Amino acid sequence: MKIAIAQLNYTIGDFEGNKEKIICHIRKARKDGAKVVMFSEQAISGRPAYDLLNDIVFLEKCNETLSEIAKESSDITTIIGLPLQIDNSTISAAAIIHNGKISRFIGKQNVISRDESYHLARSHGYEFVRVEGRNIAVVLGSDIYSEHDFGNDVDVIVRLKSTRYSRGIIEKRYDFYSKIAYKTNSNVIAVNQLGGQTDIVYDGSSFVFNRKGEAVALLKSFEEDYAVFEVDSDMPALRIPEQDKARNVYRAIKLGLKDYFVKNGFKKACLGLSGGIDSAVVCALAAEVLGPENIHVLMMPSQYSSDHSVEDAVKLAETLGIKYDIVPIPGIFDSVNNSLTEVFSGVDQDVTEENIQSRIRGVLIMALSNKYGYIVLNTSNKSECAVGYGTMYGDTVGALSILGDLYKTEVYELARHINRKGEIIPQNTINKEPSAELRPDHKDSDSLPLYDILDAILYRLIEENQTIEEITTAGFENDTVHKVFRMLMANEYKRYQFCPVLRLSTCTLGTDRILPLTYNHSCLL
Amino acid sequence: MKIAIAQLNYTIGDFEGNKEKIICHIRKARKDGAKVVMFSEQAISGRPAYDLLNDIVFLEKCNETLSEIAKESSDITTIIGLPLQIDNSTISAAAIIHNGKISRFIGKQNVISRDESYHLARSHGYEFVRVEGRNIAVVLGSDIYSEHDFGNDVDVIVRLKSTRYSRGIIEKRYDFYSKIAYKTNSNVIAVNQLGGQTDIVYDGSSFVFNRKGEAVALLKSFEEDYAVFEVDSDMPALRIPEQDKARNVYRAIKLGLKDYFVKNGFKKACLGLSGGIDSAVVCALAAEVLGPENIHVLMMPSQYSSDHSVEDAVKLAETLGIKYDIVPIPGIFDSVNNSLTEVFSGVDQDVTEENIQSRIRGVLIMALSNKYGYIVLNTSNKSECAVGYGTMYGDTVGALSILGDLYKTEVYELARHINRKGEIIPQNTINKEPSAELRPDHKDSDSLPLYDILDAILYRLIEENQTIEEITTAGFENDTVHKVFRMLMANEYKRYQFCPVLRLSTCTLGTDRILPLTYNHSCLL
Repeated sequence: MKIAIAQLNYTIGDFEGNKEKIICHIRKARKDGAKVVMFSEQAISGRPAYDLLNDIVFLEKCNETLSEIAKESSDITTIIGLPLQIDNSTISAAAIIHNGKISRFIGKQNVISRDESYHLARSHGYEFVRVEGRNIAVVLGSDIYSEHDFGNDVDVIVRLKSTRYSRGIIEKRYDFYSKIAYKTNSNVIAVNQLGGQTDIVYDGSSFVFNRKGEAVALLKSFEEDYAVFEVDSDMPALRIPEQDKARNVYRAIKLGLKDYFVKNGFKKACLGLSGGIDSAVVCALAAEVLGPENIHVLMMPSQYSSDHSVEDAVKLAETLGIKYDIVPIPGIFDSVNNSLTEVFSGVDQDVTEENIQSRIRGVLIMALSNKYGYIVLNTSNKSECAVGYGTMYGDTVGALSILGDLYKTEVYELARHINRKGEIIPQNTINKEPSAELRPDHKDSDSLPLYDILDAILYRLIEENQTIEEITTAGFENDTVHKVFRMLMANEYKRYQFCPVLRLSTCTLGTDRILPLTYNHSCLL
Repeated sequence: MKIAIAQLNYTIGDFEGNKEKIICHIRKARKDGAKVVMFSEQAISGRPAYDLLNDIVFLEKCNETLSEIAKESSDITTIIGLPLQIDNSTISAAAIIHNGKISRFIGKQNVISRDESYHLARSHGYEFVRVEGRNIAVVLGSDIYSEHDFGNDVDVIVRLKSTRYSRGIIEKRYDFYSKIAYKTNSNVIAVNQLGGQTDIVYDGSSFVFNRKGEAVALLKSFEEDYAVFEVDSDMPALRIPEQDKARNVYRAIKLGLKDYFVKNGFKKACLGLSGGIDSAVVCALAAEVLGPENIHVLMMPSQYSSDHSVEDAVKLAETLGIKYDIVPIPGIFDSVNNSLTEVFSGVDQDVTEENIQSRIRGVLIMALSNKYGYIVLNTSNKSECAVGYGTMYGDTVGALSILGDLYKTEVYELARHINRKGEIIPQNTINKEPSAELRPDHKDSDSLPLYDILDAILYRLIEENQTIEEITTAGFENDTVHKVFRMLMANEYKRYQFCPVLRLSTCTLGTDRILPLTYNHSCLL
């Protein structure tokens, strides 16, 4: 028996577009002689739909679309995910369509995702579907984690899922499912969603493991894909390819950025190019994904900018072939300071004046955006967001942050990947010491630990959820760990108003990690 | 048997401070001859603690604090809420302390709050506690909604809760519990939390209804309070006071604002005063709550500001006795425009220049904040936030928005309440037609329906969750309803980066109502 797997890119609420894709793949599967065709979790609606999941009009459209899909499902069993209204609540369900008729729904039991734990009710969990004498266990999303015993009679476990990309997850998934397949002596199929959804990237990477735990089908990562699996045939075992973390991050960002523009109907982007590493990486990625003709950057040097800043930025812009303008900010800076002379009389210069520069840049880049309808790309990184080393309404500006979930050291890694075939990002941008250039001879290391130390501590605090004690025991300096911890805990208010951050790690600040804004900061010490 | 009810103001993670308050009230209750003393849900930790609810260090501190409280609970039964780690998850529990020993925990079953549906696991629900021969059903939070049959043997139903204030809720609660008490033939006691927690105001308003459904104890709203109830005594029935909505909103804002400052250790605030109604109301409230000596405002007129704008603003500032500075923005505006001359050459003036003015004001007010350590109060209202009638990084700036959950018409209502004993907010500010004054002869009604129409439609869409069809059927113009609906659905991206909004309605945008940022906007039409 053949089972077809359709790994597709859906748009939330685009019922017509999603339906067309789905029906096209049902036809393809039938043509390929498949008896079953499966789609991901919430394929009909797109995901995560947030409050739309509890909107009656939205849920009715899901149902209507399902009925239309059912009509196209003759001579095949279609297994497809959708949000479903049951009594007065919504569940995540798989519709089982046998030969054109919706025969039943299987609901997700464990609703553990932060994006929908409020919206979805708990349902009954996996059930068996019988097709051509085979027992297929249909499992939704996270139910697979709680259920490792499907009995002896199971031929195929199919999991409908929509799991976002996070650094290192693809290899872990393969490993996990290989073991499930071997332990349960079943074929295991997972079909994942694909595509960007504002801050989320569904990486696809759907797969089939046979009863021996061998991979026999590996669908593409970061691209739509389709495959047919013949149950218990002797499809040859595939070697699971080595995963290159920098390359995967690079591909994830490209997909997330592209879909953000495509699905919102946007075309052109703008950003501020400082000559530093972060904006250079954002710019190179944007030019590649959106096309150099769709990028317009501003260089906005101040009196504290070093000579090489504009030089490096111009060099990158010319290499990429993008439009750029140089708009020096000292005139505006003076004008702001003059206006405030009386208000600030008798008080020394301090961080206020540094922030004014950053916010003037925010004003200029937003003006460019408003004037020409460009979308502003944010250029902050995760290290800065974590410790609050950035100016609100200056550095936080943008429609989307594509580096906000990458530590500074990971941004360098990405820069080297972008330059893998030759210099795109100027070597000087990569080599020079990081600086916000907001005062004379300013260096990031004036206020922060060196980035390799900072990032290592942050990674342990955020991704590994280690305690201060564990980190100092591992050899990090006590004072430094305490300082970083305090900065991390005290800057939630800045992250609260930050623009959406493309989620690339296992713990994205602001979405996967949320603190109160008012609390006793020493309560975890 | 006497039961004491302690309605207290806790701070998240301030275990020492919370413990002291709690122990002080245990002693007081014992002195008053009470056999039981009860505290609200998650009293030990404060609430909502978000991810701290799953932090081991935080949970251990909860446990330690509970042990210390238990030691002080001899000769009385203490019923107190805390987050509790059970296996690898956290539940919201009531600890039952009999004579100094923690005898057991009762866990919350229905976790329905958006603030903790991700963090808390489902527990078993209400249980009985026997004290002095009486059966007390201990219920946590929302479990009361699913459980109306406690059997015949119940003497008292006690509910530990932490329910936030929302417009109209207090009267509804009284009504609901009066019925529960009558139907179950039990005494019903609810003890609520009190105080502001960034965007939340716990209004207190704890109460006791007797078996006849009569109120026999009504604790204060918006203040800490304490009361003792004698079970099945003939305490006289109280008349439930009429609730004045404008007055309750006013008191809620004052409490929320005060606690935001007190609990964060802040003292001084600043804001931009335009001469319009919104900033005038924020300013009057801030001066009242924080003291006029702690308020510093900027008037930032542009060439489009009318003469009365600064006059009205100055009049208010002088009435309140607060510090003010007038910082005209045309110089900075020209400087920004000059810098962009080449970049914008050949393109007409448009909304870009309007936004630049708003963002310059953001730069100035943030500079004032940075220089003197003031906290910026945002001055937007809910009508604007709903339809996106505001400039990102200009109108959205601030640490806290105290009017962002009030429709424009409700802001006027509040202004009249503030002026109830005499003119504080200038009558001209209340009388004049609303205008953002960003271009010559600008009126809000150039782009928006009149506010009484706009607010009525928004209320139906947001608070009442009505469909477009229902609203047009009710008599609103079809085109207007569609326009408002589209604006509401299309501006989620602006709300995403908005500052925290004090929640005063039953559906606060951005926290109680969350849409995807990328979706097919016509999917609900």
